[in-house]
Amino acid sequence: MGFTVAEKIIRNHLKTGQLERGREIGLKIDQTLTQDSTGTMAYLQFEAMGVDRVKTKKSVAYIDHNMLQAGPENADDHLYIQRVAKKHGIYFSKPGNGICHQVHLERFGVPGETLLGSDSHTPTCGGIGMLAIGAGGLDVAVAMAGGEYFITMPRIVKVELKGRLNPGVSAKDIILEVLRIYGVKGGINKIFEYCGDGIKSLTVPERGTITNMGAELGATTSIFPSEENTYRFLKAQGREKDFIELIPDKDAYYDEEIIIDLNKLEPLIACPHSPDNVVNVTSIEGTKVNQVAIGSCTNSSYMDLMKVAEILDGKTIAEDVSLVISPGSKQVLNMLAQNGVLGKLISSGARILECGCGPCIGMGQAPNTNGISLRTFNRNFKGRSGTVSANVYLASPEVAAVSALTGCITDPRKYVNKLSIDMPEIFIVNDNLIVEPAEVDNNIEIIRGPNIRPFPKNKPLGRRIREKVLIKVEDNITTDHIMPSNAKLLPYRSNIPYLADYCLTPCDSEFPKRAKEYNGGIIIGGHNYGQGSSREHAALAPLYLGIKAVMAKSFARIHKQNLINNGILPLVFQDESNYDDIDLLDELIIEDILNQIKKDMVIVKNKTKATEYKLLLDVKDRQRKILELGGLLNLMNFQNK
Amino acid sequence: MGFTVAEKIIRNHLKTGQLERGREIGLKIDQTLTQDSTGTMAYLQFEAMGVDRVKTKKSVAYIDHNMLQAGPENADDHLYIQRVAKKHGIYFSKPGNGICHQVHLERFGVPGETLLGSDSHTPTCGGIGMLAIGAGGLDVAVAMAGGEYFITMPRIVKVELKGRLNPGVSAKDIILEVLRIYGVKGGINKIFEYCGDGIKSLTVPERGTITNMGAELGATTSIFPSEENTYRFLKAQGREKDFIELIPDKDAYYDEEIIIDLNKLEPLIACPHSPDNVVNVTSIEGTKVNQVAIGSCTNSSYMDLMKVAEILDGKTIAEDVSLVISPGSKQVLNMLAQNGVLGKLISSGARILECGCGPCIGMGQAPNTNGISLRTFNRNFKGRSGTVSANVYLASPEVAAVSALTGCITDPRKYVNKLSIDMPEIFIVNDNLIVEPAEVDNNIEIIRGPNIRPFPKNKPLGRRIREKVLIKVEDNITTDHIMPSNAKLLPYRSNIPYLADYCLTPCDSEFPKRAKEYNGGIIIGGHNYGQGSSREHAALAPLYLGIKAVMAKSFARIHKQNLINNGILPLVFQDESNYDDIDLLDELIIEDILNQIKKDMVIVKNKTKATEYKLLLDVKDRQRKILELGGLLNLMNFQNK
Repeated sequence: MGFTVAEKIIRNHLKTGQLERGREIGLKIDQTLTQDSTGTMAYLQFEAMGVDRVKTKKSVAYIDHNMLQAGPENADDHLYIQRVAKKHGIYFSKPGNGICHQVHLERFGVPGETLLGSDSHTPTCGGIGMLAIGAGGLDVAVAMAGGEYFITMPRIVKVELKGRLNPGVSAKDIILEVLRIYGVKGGINKIFEYCGDGIKSLTVPERGTITNMGAELGATTSIFPSEENTYRFLKAQGREKDFIELIPDKDAYYDEEIIIDLNKLEPLIACPHSPDNVVNVTSIEGTKVNQVAIGSCTNSSYMDLMKVAEILDGKTIAEDVSLVISPGSKQVLNMLAQNGVLGKLISSGARILECGCGPCIGMGQAPNTNGISLRTFNRNFKGRSGTVSANVYLASPEVAAVSALTGCITDPRKYVNKLSIDMPEIFIVNDNLIVEPAEVDNNIEIIRGPNIRPFPKNKPLGRRIREKVLIKVEDNITTDHIMPSNAKLLPYRSNIPYLADYCLTPCDSEFPKRAKEYNGGIIIGGHNYGQGSSREHAALAPLYLGIKAVMAKSFARIHKQNLINNGILPLVFQDESNYDDIDLLDELIIEDILNQIKKDMVIVKNKTKATEYKLLLDVKDRQRKILELGGLLNLMNFQNK
Repeated sequence: MGFTVAEKIIRNHLKTGQLERGREIGLKIDQTLTQDSTGTMAYLQFEAMGVDRVKTKKSVAYIDHNMLQAGPENADDHLYIQRVAKKHGIYFSKPGNGICHQVHLERFGVPGETLLGSDSHTPTCGGIGMLAIGAGGLDVAVAMAGGEYFITMPRIVKVELKGRLNPGVSAKDIILEVLRIYGVKGGINKIFEYCGDGIKSLTVPERGTITNMGAELGATTSIFPSEENTYRFLKAQGREKDFIELIPDKDAYYDEEIIIDLNKLEPLIACPHSPDNVVNVTSIEGTKVNQVAIGSCTNSSYMDLMKVAEILDGKTIAEDVSLVISPGSKQVLNMLAQNGVLGKLISSGARILECGCGPCIGMGQAPNTNGISLRTFNRNFKGRSGTVSANVYLASPEVAAVSALTGCITDPRKYVNKLSIDMPEIFIVNDNLIVEPAEVDNNIEIIRGPNIRPFPKNKPLGRRIREKVLIKVEDNITTDHIMPSNAKLLPYRSNIPYLADYCLTPCDSEFPKRAKEYNGGIIIGGHNYGQGSSREHAALAPLYLGIKAVMAKSFARIHKQNLINNGILPLVFQDESNYDDIDLLDELIIEDILNQIKKDMVIVKNKTKATEYKLLLDVKDRQRKILELGGLLNLMNFQNK
C-alpha cells in the first residue's frame, strides 16, 4: 500500500514510533521558526538548555508581531532575539521584512522537509509541500536543541479539489468551505492533504492561504503535493535547487475523504465570532462595514494584493470606510512599489501599514465601538481586534476590496469578471533584512531589557493534588481568552508575572486575584479548550498562578501539549455531565497522583460535593514522564544528568 | 515707514488693537485646522457654543495623531470628528491622508491669509506666506465660531539668509542654527520673518521645515514672503489661483535682526533632551545609533524623501539599525510609489510607516531601553519617544539617511556630493481622502463613543483663593510633563477624567492623588513653564484636578493662553528668589482676588511661612475678564446673554 505526501515526509523523519494512527511518533525537525511574541520565551528556554548552536538545518527568528512599539519593551525583545540568533546559529529576520509564514514560504520552506514553528499558522508552508506544524515555544526550543518533536500520528483527510474557481471566488473560499464542513474542532489530530485536478490551478501562495487557515480546524497541519506549480514558485524565488517532487502514491490510504467542486464554490464569509461560522456572502450582502482590513499571513501575498489593486484601480473607497492593507513581506511590498501598483492602492484611499501581522493580532486598527470590520484574516474571536464590541467578518481579498468600495458586504462576482493575475516569473529577491548568524560565537553580548523576565518553572508532582476550582468556563475557550493578546498586552510576552494578572480575565476578571488568593488551583473547561494560537503563555501564565490541572470536555492540540510541557495535567471528563456538577471553589482532590498518572484514567474527588469523577488522561508514556517531572525542561535536564 | 510680511497680514486682519508691540490685538481668522488629539475637545467646545456652521473661509479637521488604534477609542474619535465636520461645514481629512501641516501646506494654505490651528506646529504654513499660529483647542473653536483670535502684538525678528546651502546641509540646519542662537524660549512673543537672497534657493517645503520647527523657539510664528517659489509650489499643486505676492516693504522695520550665511552653515544636530541643545554633527560623529526615524511634520516632504532615497539607493542599512520612514502625506507616498522611488527606500531595508505623526509623538517605534535614536523630527524632550531612558537626537534627513547606513551619527557631506532634487513641476493631486462638508445639515447623527467624555468647565472666581502648593517643578517643564502624550495616553485625549490621573506624573507620580486629596491647589513652576505643544489638555487636566493658579518664573505663550482660557491664574514671580522660599504643601492665600486681578500685580500670602510675595499678572483686560468669569467659554456665554 502506498503513502500520502504527509506520510512520506513523516516516514523520512520518523525517529520514534510507527505510522500507526493515534500512536505517538517522534519526528526529526529540519527547520524551525519563531516569531517575536512567542520567540523571546522560546529562546530563554533554549538558553536554559545550554546548547551552543542550533542542531537544525535552518532556524529562523522573525519579528512580525510587536512592531507598533508603544514602549521600549518591543525594541528590547527584538534586540534580545537578534543577539541570541546571531550567537546560536539562527537566521534573524528584522522587523520590516515581513510576516514569518509569508517570508518562510518565499525564502526558506523546502518541500519534503519538516518545519516546527512557535506559531499556530506554521502550516502555511504546507503550501509548498512541507510538513509544517505549529507548536509551543518550548517544543520549538527542544527541536532547535536537536530533540524530536512528538505528536499523535494523525489521521489523514483527503481533500479532493475538482474543477476550477470562478472569477471572484478564491483560495480563501476553499478553506472557508472546509471550515464550514469540519468546524473549529473537526481537525484535531488530523492532517488535511489536498489533491485532485483542482490543485493545478492553485499557485503556491494560494495553497499557502489554505494550509495557513487550516490551523482554524484544529488540525495538526495541512499539506499540498510538491509538483510543477511548486517548482515554478521556487524557481521564481531563485530557489529551484530546493525543489523535489512529492506526490501521493496512487494507492495511498486516507482515513477520510471530502470532495470540493471548485466550479460550484461561491464567495463565503465567516461571521462573528468564529472562523467556522461560515455563510454565503450573498446571504448577508448589504451589511454596512466601518473598516476593511487586508493582509495577515492568510492573504497578503503579491497576487492577493495585485487582485485587490485591480479591483480598486481608479476608484475611491466608500466615505465611511477605513481600508488598511498590510503587505505580507518586504518582497511583496517592494514588488508593488517597483511595478507601480502600490500607487493604485494608495490612490484609492487605502492606508498602507507595515509588513507585519498588525491588526490580525490586535496590534492596531481596532474598529470603533460596535463597529463592523471585514478582514481577510484567519480569526475573528471576540475582542481579538482590540474592540470587544466589534463584529469581525472573515473573507477573501476580493470580497474585502469590493466591499471597501461599496461600503457594505458585497459579492465580488458582480464586480469582477475576470482576474488574470499570473504568478510572476521572477520575484524580487533581496534578503538584506535577514541577518545571518555568526560563524563563531565571538563573545556576542546578549542584552536583556528590564521587561525580559525569567519564565516560571514547575516542580515535580507531589503525593497528591488538593486544590480549589478557580474558574469554570464554556466551550471553545481560545488562547485569546486564556492569555489575551491585544495591543496593550502583546508587548509583555517576555514578562509572565505581568501577563498573569490578565490570565483568563475575558472570562472572569477576578480569576488572577482568586488564583493568587488560593495560591493556585484547578481550571474547569468545556470542549476544545485552548483553541487558537500556539502561544505557550496560555500555559505559562496559569503555571505562574499555581494551576495544577485543567479538567475539560476536550482540548485543542497545541494547548494540551503546552500544558503537559509545563507540567499541568490536561484531564478530560469521561462523563461530560460531571462538568455541570462542579462549582466555583469546589475542593478537588487527586490522591496518589504519581500512580494515577500512569494510567489512562484518574479519579478526582470533589470534597465539597462529596462525590468523585473519572477523568481521562489521554497522553503518551513520554508525556506521563514529563508530567511527573513537572515539565519538559525538567525532563531535558533529567535526561542530561 | 513700510511693513514686514507679517505686519501686512496682521493689518489686513486686525479687528481689535493696533500694530503696537506688546499690546493686545484681535485677529480675524480665515482658516482653522485641528488634528485628532486636540480636535475632539475643540469640537466638543465648538458644539457647546451652539453655532450651526463654521464662520471661517475654510476649516479642516485632520486625523494624523491617533492612527495606531490599539483600542476602540481612536476609531470612535475619528468617527465623532468626521460626523461633526460633515455637519458643521468642516473639511475632514481621513486617516491615511497625511499629517495636518504637510497636507495643509499642499492643499489649503493661502498666502496672505490667517490660519489658527490646535497644534503648535501650525506655523508650517508660514512657509507659504501665511500667518499661521498654533493655539489651544478652545481658541480654535472660538475662531470657527467667528470670534477673533487675541495675541500680544509680537516683535518681528528679521532672519536674513545669505548665500546658498552646500550639499549635505539643508533647511533643517537653518532652523537648528536659529535654535542654537535663540534657544527654546528666545522666541516668546516674536515672529521670525525670513528674507534675504538666501531664500531664493529654498522651496516651499524647505521653508515649511523652518517655519514648522520655529515653534520650538516659543515664537508666535515664523513666516516667509510669498514670491516666485511660492507661485511655483502652488502651481505644481494646481492652486496658482491662490497665489498673491507678499513681500516686505523695503523700509520695513524689524525689532531684531540676525544674519545666517548659508554657505558657512554646517550640518547641525540637537542633542538630548532639548531642540536647542544644538552642536555640529562633526562634534559627535561616530555615536552609535539603534534607530533612525525619518518623517514628522518637519521633514516628510516629497523632496525630503527623494533626498533620502538618493542616499539609500542600492545600499543596505546597518545591521543594528532599525530605519523607519513616515511619509508626510498620501500625496508624498503616492508620488514615491508611482515614480518607483519608494522601491529604493524599501530595498535598502527601510520600514515604511503610515502617513501620520507616528513616532514623533511617541505613537509607536519607541527605541530600546537606553537606546539612541536619530530623528528628523522637531522635539526630543525626555520620554517623548515612548522610552524614558532613550537619547533622541534631531537632525536633517541627510544626516539621518547617511547615519542609517553607517550605523552611527555621520556627517553627510562626506557621502553626499550633490543632491539635485528639484521640486516637481506637478504634484499628484488626489483629494479623495478629504471628505467635503454637507451642503446642509441633513440630520447628520453625531456618534460619541464611550471614551468621549464632557470637558471640565471652571466657575467664576470667588472671593479669595486659599490653597496648598501641590507640586513644585523646575525650568522648561513641557506640556509633555504636564499632560504626558505617549502611545498609552494619547488615545484618551477625549477623556479628561482618565488623563488627569497622569497629569504632571513625570515630575511627581503622587501629584494627581495629592490634588484629589486636597481638592485642588496651586502649581509652582520655573522658567518657560508649559513649553512645547498646544494641547489644551495641559490646562484641562489641572482644571479637572482643581488647580486655581500656576505661579512660575515665566510661561510659554500657548500654554499661558490655555490656562487663562480655562480660568487658571498664570502668575509670574516678580522676585524669582521667592520660588526658592516656597515648599510643597505651603498654604497660599490670595485675598480679595476679584480686585487684585484688575491690577498687574497680585499679592500672594504664604501662611505657612508667614510671608508674602508679589506676582505679576501680565494679561490683557479681556483676559482679566476671562479669568474673572472662569474661562473663555463662560465669557462667550456671558457675551451671548
